[in-house]
Amino acid sequence: MEARISLITLGVSDLARARAFYERLGFRASAASQGDIVFFQCGAMALALFPREELAKDAGVPEQGAGFRGLALAHNVRVKGDVAAVLAEAEAAGGRIVKQAQDVFWGGHSGYFADPDGHLWEVAWNPHLIPDESGAVTLP
Amino acid sequence: MEARISLITLGVSDLARARAFYERLGFRASAASQGDIVFFQCGAMALALFPREELAKDAGVPEQGAGFRGLALAHNVRVKGDVAAVLAEAEAAGGRIVKQAQDVFWGGHSGYFADPDGHLWEVAWNPHLIPDESGAVTLP
Repeated sequence: MEARISLITLGVSDLARARAFYERLGFRASAASQGDIVFFQCGAMALALFPREELAKDAGVPEQGAGFRGLALAHNVRVKGDVAAVLAEAEAAGGRIVKQAQDVFWGGHSGYFADPDGHLWEVAWNPHLIPDESGAVTLP
Repeated sequence: MEARISLITLGVSDLARARAFYERLGFRASAASQGDIVFFQCGAMALALFPREELAKDAGVPEQGAGFRGLALAHNVRVKGDVAAVLAEAEAAGGRIVKQAQDVFWGGHSGYFADPDGHLWEVAWNPHLIPDESGAVTLP
């Protein structure tokens, strides 16, 4: 297995609401979106929105689940002040700020928002992991 | 907000077990890994392993949660037969096959595995979304 992720699918309870949220945030739906799936190009990978129960059915697992999902997506910014700015954008788009922008013990600055379905995004300025022009990050 | 994901952090209950699983699958831990966080370069982004309760604390959310997480990562392969091969690798590495490789309604071929902490990965051959040489996928 090559070390790469091609796609992340977020299960959502209201596809139109989720799509509108991500579009307000600047994601553009691909022409590949159809029926009950929406795709966004997301750097070198794709982000998909799909009804939560359909995703469970596709994987063949029970759809019951609640609480912390044990996972967070992160969006790194290039400038410290952009952390608060992106959190404010997410709130204005219909998300919820879970943790305000603040300095963190590892030397960076970060906060969290939840999308309308509760999927957690960290927004981080990490001086050791600044995205390049294409948006890629490269670990030491 | 630019449409990109820099990092995905998976909350894990046993960091050594999770690290060993991903290393067996071919992920290489970065020198940036230290203490209770492990980083893997993953294409143009990074994948991190972090204790589940620490991740909840970092986000400032209750750590309770169970069942379906409403989210799946996907790894697209270039050749149909690689779906079954990657699922077998995941099982050999200590994962669990959740859905065997099979043809799916949208014209592709896919299956699912769960990592030792239950994080779902779809392994898919999608004729409309074949990774390029660098591993990137580009939507129509």
